[in-house]
Amino acid sequence: MWNCPYSTDLFAKFAEEFSDIDSAPSLLMLSEVASSLGVTIIGGSIPEKDAGQLYNSCPVFGPNGELKAKHRKIHLFDMGKPLPGEVQFKESVNISAGEKPTVVDTDFGRIGIGICHDIRFPELAMSYSARGAHLICYPGAFNMSTGATLWELEQRTRAVDNQLYVASCSLSRDSASSYMIWGHSTVVGPMGKIIATTGHEEAALIAEIDYAAIQWTSSCRESLPLESQKRNDIYQFVDLLRESLNS
Amino acid sequence: MWNCPYSTDLFAKFAEEFSDIDSAPSLLMLSEVASSLGVTIIGGSIPEKDAGQLYNSCPVFGPNGELKAKHRKIHLFDMGKPLPGEVQFKESVNISAGEKPTVVDTDFGRIGIGICHDIRFPELAMSYSARGAHLICYPGAFNMSTGATLWELEQRTRAVDNQLYVASCSLSRDSASSYMIWGHSTVVGPMGKIIATTGHEEAALIAEIDYAAIQWTSSCRESLPLESQKRNDIYQFVDLLRESLNS
Repeated sequence: MWNCPYSTDLFAKFAEEFSDIDSAPSLLMLSEVASSLGVTIIGGSIPEKDAGQLYNSCPVFGPNGELKAKHRKIHLFDMGKPLPGEVQFKESVNISAGEKPTVVDTDFGRIGIGICHDIRFPELAMSYSARGAHLICYPGAFNMSTGATLWELEQRTRAVDNQLYVASCSLSRDSASSYMIWGHSTVVGPMGKIIATTGHEEAALIAEIDYAAIQWTSSCRESLPLESQKRNDIYQFVDLLRESLNS
Repeated sequence: MWNCPYSTDLFAKFAEEFSDIDSAPSLLMLSEVASSLGVTIIGGSIPEKDAGQLYNSCPVFGPNGELKAKHRKIHLFDMGKPLPGEVQFKESVNISAGEKPTVVDTDFGRIGIGICHDIRFPELAMSYSARGAHLICYPGAFNMSTGATLWELEQRTRAVDNQLYVASCSLSRDSASSYMIWGHSTVVGPMGKIIATTGHEEAALIAEIDYAAIQWTSSCRESLPLESQKRNDIYQFVDLLRESLNS
């Protein structure tokens, strides 16, 4: 959440209504940037308020400045029993969970969206792959511990297992904050190769994504068709909310 | 397959019948070693012949030398359309695919087994995790290309996504062979940390596995209960062959 401190008691104060962009300063800024530059923006996440609930939500703006989609974080970060000396963190105390995957067709391909802890669940990425996504974008705020051990691993494996691109965007690190951010926004190709990445400071990252590589790179879809090799006689992944095989 | 060259036309010559261990030299040797040392052996894989079919099969021997289980490779390595200059490889021309996941209860916990390409499929590991496995063993023979890019990644991610241990055993590299083996047998903990690994030459690898870490390490099951955070209202993984929720 880039428009407020990551502190559960402050989410309500900075929350914006996605149905009323003119009164939502963060969303309005993204919309204006998208339309003035004619670009698509996957806008990280901000707290959203709707009907008395708060959500951790990522807006997507098209090149005309229109809000094309939003993704509400599906998997909230709730720690279980904390280890001795470890801080308890329970996002669900203040935040409600999203109820569906989000796939959006843009000028730059079909994009699936996950927020932070959503990346820990292979099922969401499998759903996006089955729905035809070329790229999954994960805004996130992994901390120093999970960042060092898991941030890169999770991105690479979602890309490799689903033979598609993954792009992540993290907050930069504020050493004075109580929640220390790992950083390292990254773009990963369909064979798990890191195409571009940053450190933990503020940065602009530019990467070229070639969707043809999804089909044609060594061990990608034409060369190694994992999807058709799945053993649906032994196991099946069921995407309960997918409306049809073509959606 | 450690008792023969990895060459599809030679599998039949070296294949053994698992129902008649006394006439199966590789299996008999493993059985005798297991019983003489009183150890459990997950015996890599060899070609199995049964009713006119060949399988790529991994035997499991208990400390009395009995064959406790076998896993037949479920996902055969069939390349699709080869890229220019790339060799076509189609295991299914000679080998039949196994028809079920394999979980075996040993003196050292509940162990799931996958062979080589089986590791590329998150579903198999998810099935083992749901069936209560503490450890997944993957004998494998990744090559120089997929080995460098994917071997470690796949093991770490299966461990992390399922919060359990993964152990792999690879053939060592024979530089004179037409199929160059990556090597690097490895043991990975439930947070994706590599506990022990080898290079590409023959080696014995000794590692201590602490199953308590599955529950109690930072970000493991008690601290971060991924299984209970799965959104079964949005997606479901269905293990078609699991007989009951307790098996």
